[in-house]
Amino acid sequence: MSAVDDVVRLGGGRMPTLIERAERFLEEIVAGHGEVLADAAAGTLAAGGKRLRPLLVFLCADGNEGDAPVRAAAAVELVHLATLVHDDVVDRAALRRGRPTVFATRGRETATATGDFVFSRAFSLLAANDDERQVSVLADACLALAAGELAQRHDAYRDDISEERYVLRCRLKTASLFAAACLLGASAAGRPAAEAAALEAFGQDLGIAFQMLDDLLDVSGPAERTGKHRGTDLLDGTVTLPLILAREQDPALAMLDLREVSTRARAEEVCDRIAATDALTATRARAGELMARAKDVLRGRVDDGLENVLCSVADRVADRYA
Amino acid sequence: MSAVDDVVRLGGGRMPTLIERAERFLEEIVAGHGEVLADAAAGTLAAGGKRLRPLLVFLCADGNEGDAPVRAAAAVELVHLATLVHDDVVDRAALRRGRPTVFATRGRETATATGDFVFSRAFSLLAANDDERQVSVLADACLALAAGELAQRHDAYRDDISEERYVLRCRLKTASLFAAACLLGASAAGRPAAEAAALEAFGQDLGIAFQMLDDLLDVSGPAERTGKHRGTDLLDGTVTLPLILAREQDPALAMLDLREVSTRARAEEVCDRIAATDALTATRARAGELMARAKDVLRGRVDDGLENVLCSVADRVADRYA
Repeated sequence: MSAVDDVVRLGGGRMPTLIERAERFLEEIVAGHGEVLADAAAGTLAAGGKRLRPLLVFLCADGNEGDAPVRAAAAVELVHLATLVHDDVVDRAALRRGRPTVFATRGRETATATGDFVFSRAFSLLAANDDERQVSVLADACLALAAGELAQRHDAYRDDISEERYVLRCRLKTASLFAAACLLGASAAGRPAAEAAALEAFGQDLGIAFQMLDDLLDVSGPAERTGKHRGTDLLDGTVTLPLILAREQDPALAMLDLREVSTRARAEEVCDRIAATDALTATRARAGELMARAKDVLRGRVDDGLENVLCSVADRVADRYA
Repeated sequence: MSAVDDVVRLGGGRMPTLIERAERFLEEIVAGHGEVLADAAAGTLAAGGKRLRPLLVFLCADGNEGDAPVRAAAAVELVHLATLVHDDVVDRAALRRGRPTVFATRGRETATATGDFVFSRAFSLLAANDDERQVSVLADACLALAAGELAQRHDAYRDDISEERYVLRCRLKTASLFAAACLLGASAAGRPAAEAAALEAFGQDLGIAFQMLDDLLDVSGPAERTGKHRGTDLLDGTVTLPLILAREQDPALAMLDLREVSTRARAEEVCDRIAATDALTATRARAGELMARAKDVLRGRVDDGLENVLCSVADRVADRYA
């Protein structure tokens, strides 16, 4: 929460109001479709957390205080929430951010339908902006998210995943929605194409770095901080950058068959082994390079005020994982 | 297949070309996003079957042979296919129309992501029509489909489901997409509002009747015709009109706790018991009334040619279940 809170302060007085308006939109959506959805989705909404994506929409829409950016921000967050609900079904997850998931409380049928519902609501909300390009941007981002999930499943347990392939997956499954958030904000503000392209590139690099740092945290922990045990990705068969880099240094890790990592204790052992190489430092460095590139692309392409506040967002995201 | 084939013949020479163009669109979508999706979705596409929804789009778009109705038709079918893929995950279904499901061949993660992907593709395709109302129509239909699934889960195993509640569910989970197909076709053809409203009402009643007849078939069988055992809805806890009506006549059925119906043999016994009342005849009569109302709404509101061909569609749908 703190990263967003800090930036909301940086963004000045208007930002809390916009975030609050997006929150209200989200709450109305949950309340306005009957008891079944209200119950199922209230937990999802609360589990969303940081509202980093809506924040990007608002920052990039600076200057436009109408309903359009609020709808775009809520739509992006709804897509994010829909993917969380479906992820929880797929992972049979009982908790998210310490709260019971829709899957856990309502079962897989209701959770699947709730995800579809929230997803559809994003598009019906965005359609009200009466800008077909915005719908295309969101639809393309959704396509990328789903393609990223498909690629991750395809890559599961494999020992030949390259860093390039891993970065591609991060771009699809995470960065595409960050980039879409920036682009939707730029579109709502009517920014020129070159500015919009710079903001999109910023969102993309920030999103890849964000995912790298998240994957790092899954190996480094500690559990008290992440709210989950270390090595959940390993148990899932998800090959992330720390393992890819550690495999180049540690022959035992290079030989490891991930399918044999089936207990929590064994996963933590592998995490320790990864941490014993310099893979965690290298992963942090890669994320740092992307953050630097994200900031760099803004210089001279957007006004100084926007550049400053977006660089602060990038710094706060990096700090969260420092 | 035969209902559509017949109507395609009725619709004259243009219809096969349009259906073929929509099919090609669907095939390109499947082929254009890498091997993982291609494998997963090819089966889904093939499992779709009748293409009744695209047919409604084309018939209602009569007079417009551009890409717009083809995109709308493909988008509607993609939404339908996405819901089938998710339904198969929820039901852990191994087969659909005699072919292995994505869930069965690729597992729940890939099937969930494939559904999300196909869903997103529908919106990205429709956005190219550059008509924000069309996106709203499809998004609202998707919302209704998901709300229908949620309502069905909420109602599962209950003994107090009224006929009205059942009809509401049919409207949400099936008729909304039929109505959207008609409305999208009307929109692509630039029909006046009154005509579009009549076509939407036609699609809605046709869709409810279609669902009623489908539910009837689940009780009446025979299995050789439906490709599945009788009573799958009962095993699922889904209370449909035949059971609702039969309960009013047979005290043993009124007392029945659906949770105790847990074997195929027991489900078939209950089907026999429902068939021993006049519930099947009454269900067929209700569907017939809706079909009559669907045709009636067209009279004097759309041109005779369109009225005739849509009435033929309704008749062919009814015949399929006769």
